Amino acid sequence: MRFAVLGAGRIGQVHSDALAGVAGAELVAIADPMAEAAQAVRARHGCDIRTIDQISGSDDVDAVLICTPTDTHADLIEQFARAGKAIFCEKPIDLEIDRVRACLDVVRETGAFLMIGFQRRFEPDFNVLRGAIDAGKIGKVEMVTLTSRDPSPPPVSYIVRSGGIFRDMVIHDFDVARWILGEEVETVQAAGSVLVDAAIGEAGDFDSASVLMTSASGKHCAISCSRRATYGYDQRIEVHGSKGSVSALNHAEARVQFAGPDGYTVPPNQHFFITRYMNAYRAEIEAFVKAVTEGAPPPVGGEDGLQALALALAAMKSVEESRAVKVSEILG
Amino acid sequence: MRFAVLGAGRIGQVHSDALAGVAGAELVAIADPMAEAAQAVRARHGCDIRTIDQISGSDDVDAVLICTPTDTHADLIEQFARAGKAIFCEKPIDLEIDRVRACLDVVRETGAFLMIGFQRRFEPDFNVLRGAIDAGKIGKVEMVTLTSRDPSPPPVSYIVRSGGIFRDMVIHDFDVARWILGEEVETVQAAGSVLVDAAIGEAGDFDSASVLMTSASGKHCAISCSRRATYGYDQRIEVHGSKGSVSALNHAEARVQFAGPDGYTVPPNQHFFITRYMNAYRAEIEAFVKAVTEGAPPPVGGEDGLQALALALAAMKSVEESRAVKVSEILG
Amino acid sequence: MRFAVLGAGRIGQVHSDALAGVAGAELVAIADPMAEAAQAVRARHGCDIRTIDQISGSDDVDAVLICTPTDTHADLIEQFARAGKAIFCEKPIDLEIDRVRACLDVVRETGAFLMIGFQRRFEPDFNVLRGAIDAGKIGKVEMVTLTSRDPSPPPVSYIVRSGGIFRDMVIHDFDVARWILGEEVETVQAAGSVLVDAAIGEAGDFDSASVLMTSASGKHCAISCSRRATYGYDQRIEVHGSKGSVSALNHAEARVQFAGPDGYTVPPNQHFFITRYMNAYRAEIEAFVKAVTEGAPPPVGGEDGLQALALALAAMKSVEESRAVKVSEILG
Amino acid sequence: MRFAVLGAGRIGQVHSDALAGVAGAELVAIADPMAEAAQAVRARHGCDIRTIDQISGSDDVDAVLICTPTDTHADLIEQFARAGKAIFCEKPIDLEIDRVRACLDVVRETGAFLMIGFQRRFEPDFNVLRGAIDAGKIGKVEMVTLTSRDPSPPPVSYIVRSGGIFRDMVIHDFDVARWILGEEVETVQAAGSVLVDAAIGEAGDFDSASVLMTSASGKHCAISCSRRATYGYDQRIEVHGSKGSVSALNHAEARVQFAGPDGYTVPPNQHFFITRYMNAYRAEIEAFVKAVTEGAPPPVGGEDGLQALALALAAMKSVEESRAVKVSEILG
Repeated sequence: MRFAVLGAGRIGQVHSDALAGVAGAELVAIADPMAEAAQAVRARHGCDIRTIDQISGSDDVDAVLICTPTDTHADLIEQFARAGKAIFCEKPIDLEIDRVRACLDVVRETGAFLMIGFQRRFEPDFNVLRGAIDAGKIGKVEMVTLTSRDPSPPPVSYIVRSGGIFRDMVIHDFDVARWILGEEVETVQAAGSVLVDAAIGEAGDFDSASVLMTSASGKHCAISCSRRATYGYDQRIEVHGSKGSVSALNHAEARVQFAGPDGYTVPPNQHFFITRYMNAYRAEIEAFVKAVTEGAPPPVGGEDGLQALALALAAMKSVEESRAVKVSEILG
Repeated sequence: MRFAVLGAGRIGQVHSDALAGVAGAELVAIADPMAEAAQAVRARHGCDIRTIDQISGSDDVDAVLICTPTDTHADLIEQFARAGKAIFCEKPIDLEIDRVRACLDVVRETGAFLMIGFQRRFEPDFNVLRGAIDAGKIGKVEMVTLTSRDPSPPPVSYIVRSGGIFRDMVIHDFDVARWILGEEVETVQAAGSVLVDAAIGEAGDFDSASVLMTSASGKHCAISCSRRATYGYDQRIEVHGSKGSVSALNHAEARVQFAGPDGYTVPPNQHFFITRYMNAYRAEIEAFVKAVTEGAPPPVGGEDGLQALALALAAMKSVEESRAVKVSEILG
Repeated sequence: MRFAVLGAGRIGQVHSDALAGVAGAELVAIADPMAEAAQAVRARHGCDIRTIDQISGSDDVDAVLICTPTDTHADLIEQFARAGKAIFCEKPIDLEIDRVRACLDVVRETGAFLMIGFQRRFEPDFNVLRGAIDAGKIGKVEMVTLTSRDPSPPPVSYIVRSGGIFRDMVIHDFDVARWILGEEVETVQAAGSVLVDAAIGEAGDFDSASVLMTSASGKHCAISCSRRATYGYDQRIEVHGSKGSVSALNHAEARVQFAGPDGYTVPPNQHFFITRYMNAYRAEIEAFVKAVTEGAPPPVGGEDGLQALALALAAMKSVEESRAVKVSEILG
Repeated sequence: MRFAVLGAGRIGQVHSDALAGVAGAELVAIADPMAEAAQAVRARHGCDIRTIDQISGSDDVDAVLICTPTDTHADLIEQFARAGKAIFCEKPIDLEIDRVRACLDVVRETGAFLMIGFQRRFEPDFNVLRGAIDAGKIGKVEMVTLTSRDPSPPPVSYIVRSGGIFRDMVIHDFDVARWILGEEVETVQAAGSVLVDAAIGEAGDFDSASVLMTSASGKHCAISCSRRATYGYDQRIEVHGSKGSVSALNHAEARVQFAGPDGYTVPPNQHFFITRYMNAYRAEIEAFVKAVTEGAPPPVGGEDGLQALALALAAMKSVEESRAVKVSEILG
């Protein structure tokens, strides 16, 4: 499968590198208005530099990875759906539910293959956890607890364009929650605070967020999210079930232990989400190639992008109106 | 200090045993309408059996431990406050806020010493955690996560008189939350479900509860509570702060580890809350004796009982009305 | 059972305290040439102060706990065996094999009940480990690894009278090895070094010792022992078997965990062996009372004391002669 | 740097794959008498298939990786030293000390670059451990404990040609011991047993081995080695020092934890040494390329191969003669 990557920023580079390790995948072209960024990818992987419109019209491109800024996602999905390319798009499709729906209409009409980049679904440990649940190891899922803390906040310049902590950061946890709960969320309660950096508050966002969700059958899911953790990237899943529980633990920088007068110490967690999820990014692209090749539906589709966004919007509304918000209020 | 214990049930026995190990404390009398229960305590500790009214009028009793059913607590506190005894009362003072207030008025008027039995505040590990916070080890407290799961639910006959999961079980976590947050909770959101045993639902209660609270300064506290955990008594505190985090971990039945084809296994947690908290019960009585002896205020007072109850009532109202409830709505 | 404790030093106090918690045991008398030490025990437990000869002739004493200096043990065992008292003696019986044998002859002739104080056999975790082995959980025992490190060395004044690290400290591990291996050791190889404190070397002893033992059927047991560990009392057992392994882990001062820029830290181990083994000391006395009461053989007998000493002597000979020493060379 | 790989067996494939990920390294040719094996490498990496003599005379080959059977190593090292190629050779150089010495003479005379494949020195966690020691974090190294257990024994057909457990398996631990101790071993004591598989004993080898070594300054190193561990590949290093200790822990198959009635379980260790050491194999080749390129001495040289072999031979002699063997007896 011949690929073009749209956007040569950080995540575009991650996917370009991941492609290099995927059997049956070939990087044909990179597009980026920043010439330097595109040249760096070309230097590393020996691909062409083309414009987005050139790629859209290229016969030697089967699939695109959309790694451009969020506000271009929906337009590009529509353009490449019409161009008949298989599409992988980084989350989110758009920050607004109506735009997402319009975009998904085009995908449906054109019969395009669209996969959304929620890479955590491909993380090996998380899949061991999910596999154990599917195998009945913990019985019926009852209470899910997600902990999600970045080592340090992004620059405020990023924050202002991000759509806010619920749509930018917690969105991943909303998707994991849906994946683990095994049924849709019905009600969302949330709280947001500025505890880490006052500048984030001045930019109109929160840096600390908590969510409490219930599903139709009464399962609970709690999310605890912060833009700062001094001990590295903190990403945990705990699932409490009728027969037991299963947890996905953090990844330390090294598997060593020190002992001394202060006690026993193991190193902090890996600090960078790209290091932490490198295996997941590779597995994600492999899953994309496999699904397209086999004519299977995308393992994470446009509807998943829509639902996760709806949870984020419900959380935002809950904070604003100090009440439990039904997801149906968002989705109509 | 010469003690009488009111109530020779399970918790009355725990406190009678704890008294035996406290320097300066002597068990003089036990009261219980069930002759057999009272006789068992006498046999074990060589104390008198007396009626409550006899104890109230006994010159050789300095202090009482109230371990009777919840609906007698407020009356007994008033009776013994008027009798001039130092009072230790198991939580809760009462299930209704007005009755608690009236009772505390009597305590205030009589100048009685009243301590409420939130034993977790005296658990050694929790005090190491709290000490680390006070010492500034994790910086400013931001997000507290409490996990609270009993090995298995009590009988439905207990459930129906318990006041419900929020006032009976989560009440301990509400107190711990206040103790750790270092400021009062302002807003409470909550969810309750019947996931463990349908009979609990038929009795009008939940068996699974989640709470999300925020303080005036925007700190978050999440509580996850279930009446059943197959892996033993699960009682954890995690405090995330600006400089790091501190957690209190569970206590395994034994500090051994098995390795085999299925991996590495350590034993489940201690199954019984009395085993888990035996050190705390002893330390609690020691703190009572110390405070009375030194004329210090009670380390956990009537106001603490009132505030924890207010959080429970706010959580119940939140579930009922599907909205964030301000604690001030409860306390007026 | 009415007890006298001989010796009111540290270990005599430990046993006096332990006795107080054992049902059916009563402390009648304490003996110690240091009046102050004896008075402290009397003040704490309300017993008589008597001389050893008075105790030997006391009708109201059923059993003695010998907690005097090592060089008095054998004489006292003989005296009290002849006096018809049940005897518990702290390890070792004597530092020399011939004296031990002569003493055990007297015990045999008088039919006295003699139990030796290897308290680790009564430590709860170690018994879970041993129970798992007996239950076949790890299959056939193959390789045992014992780690034994004190927080800090005793004073040199103690070292010079101790009999040396192998007879004073490793002796406990030799006993544990025999208890876990399930068969006698055949061959001992050892190494001793002065790495911690040159003064210990000048006193003619080692402060760091390693032992490698093999049993008749070829099982291995390795012991690593040091007089100093900055992270608290380090006492581990690891047993590797045909179906898996089982380990007894250390006991932390508290079950809390800190996270920060340097990683995740749990507190050091309990620093004092008496804290670490308090449960074991109590269980040991309970086992003594139970065995005497039931007319059962002592759970740890004189022969166990003899065999552990033989292993220590074999290790010393191995270091001296730079060769593998058969235990039969020591025992003849 | 243009490489040829000699031997297309398992370890030859590992190194061929590792080469593909090393910047500045190119695989030019593979040699193997088994046509199929060589073709598989060619298919995977697009290199030539040549005979060893062809490679020896090839101008387009700068370096060779010797991955052939042990009994060819010394001859091949000599051949390629004379041909002026940089040489990486899998351990051991030879099973006999005299042959190793003769081979190293040729290396010295020709001035060839020779690196020996002790990959553990390049394992990331072990390097964190070693770095902490070098940084003085644990003070002076005193007692090293190495645990080394394979998931299951190799076929007896392999055992008979392996040189025995000390030269085949423990050799890696001997090298790690030298690397960690920071000084040469002076004395070796050892024990060997057949506990896992009687067929291994019938083939003249042991399947369980223990070693106790001392250095000139009195440091101890204990090694515990078994051909079988039901819980996966067990490879641990524990270094006890004057200020504390540092340990390298095992690598679990996944970082998840299950909780249920039997307790808390984490998955077994990775089962395959090639999985466990994949990062080490890559880092090893990178170190080779870097040293050759920079004209630096090999990070692991012929002398290291000689010394590790001497320790293995000393251990074998110790078992045979039931005594402590000085390394100088082996090396003369």
